[in-house]
Amino acid sequence: MAGMSASPLPHRAEIEHAVRRLLYQRLNQPVPKAVLAPRPLVVNVSARHCHLTQAAVETLFGKGHKLRPMKMLYQEGQYAAQECVTLIGPRSRVISNLRILGPCRDLNQVELAFTDAISLGFEVPVRSSGNIAGTPGCMLMGPAGFLELNEGVIRAAPHVHMHPDDAVFYGVKAGDYMRLRVHGDCGMTFDRVFVRVSKDFKLEVHIDTDEGNACGLAPGAACELLRI
Amino acid sequence: MAGMSASPLPHRAEIEHAVRRLLYQRLNQPVPKAVLAPRPLVVNVSARHCHLTQAAVETLFGKGHKLRPMKMLYQEGQYAAQECVTLIGPRSRVISNLRILGPCRDLNQVELAFTDAISLGFEVPVRSSGNIAGTPGCMLMGPAGFLELNEGVIRAAPHVHMHPDDAVFYGVKAGDYMRLRVHGDCGMTFDRVFVRVSKDFKLEVHIDTDEGNACGLAPGAACELLRI
Repeated sequence: MAGMSASPLPHRAEIEHAVRRLLYQRLNQPVPKAVLAPRPLVVNVSARHCHLTQAAVETLFGKGHKLRPMKMLYQEGQYAAQECVTLIGPRSRVISNLRILGPCRDLNQVELAFTDAISLGFEVPVRSSGNIAGTPGCMLMGPAGFLELNEGVIRAAPHVHMHPDDAVFYGVKAGDYMRLRVHGDCGMTFDRVFVRVSKDFKLEVHIDTDEGNACGLAPGAACELLRI
Repeated sequence: MAGMSASPLPHRAEIEHAVRRLLYQRLNQPVPKAVLAPRPLVVNVSARHCHLTQAAVETLFGKGHKLRPMKMLYQEGQYAAQECVTLIGPRSRVISNLRILGPCRDLNQVELAFTDAISLGFEVPVRSSGNIAGTPGCMLMGPAGFLELNEGVIRAAPHVHMHPDDAVFYGVKAGDYMRLRVHGDCGMTFDRVFVRVSKDFKLEVHIDTDEGNACGLAPGAACELLRI
């Protein structure tokens, strides 16, 4: 699927965003700031997963093996693969069915929630994706073999992917922090959401399962992205 | 231990609070507002647990059985009991070693984190303690028998126990909501912390394990309780 030339359908959030803007215009109502944003605010929960190099995939799944997309993610070209691995932690405790996200990257990285780390007996630092120097390693097991990682197990810091247009709209730049407010019974504000900017990104906040469960994030939850 | 007349030693947080105030006075420094508070701000994570009536304890542990305190909690007279029960959820999934907190109350209530509820296959509403009408039930199993609860399984809303003196200091009353800001790598603000006031309470915020894991609450984490 990655690399196909036909554009996929827009995401539901994008269609809603466009319709909402049109409605305000038609009804001649004052338009809320969020409706004027270049993109809708999408907040997604990332369950534990890993990113692997092509070499790692071949070690685990066999020579020449290519990841097979199972489900496309919101970020263009990113997907949850059909392939999973088994993670073996420092005390021989195990998480099976750790999903691989594709396409392959140039480093191996495992992203766990704090609850996962506790159940495995890890001390896992909070890091931004890619910043893995000095983090703990683990063993991965696939149908074709084992792969020992010397580092790369992190708890991903809450972060927001954004296009340069979004960065302009919100008045932030790569490396800044923002706040994410999630409304509801367990209303909560994430005070340190790390900003990542790329022309390839669409506006999307990623929090982990602990964070999603803590704020009771449900589809359609009212969320605001706020400059600090 | 409950009902003994000798006062226990003050909690570490209370001693630190008193020492901090004295130091500011001795050094003739301007005293921060938090240091002037009648009590230190203590934030604790409540793992899943239950409160039971004496009748329920006898059904589960045998006629005449009395809970035995294992560890005293921060609130005067409250304790984690030596006794645990097994919780059986709606899909026959089980949580063993669900701790009972004593002393006995006049209702049966099970407090789970959202992660626990997911693993059991429950839909559990966010409620304040005691407000259990219409909530799901469960089965409890003890060494002497089973107890079926028709209701009482909740996810406890984040809440703060406070003495009337604390309520005056913070300018809030029972039933209000406050914010709790937790600083750190995963800095987070709980926007809906329910205020409970009683002469028997000491200032203490209770969050659940999901919430504690999401904000990475560690001993000594800098926290602020803020009026909305």
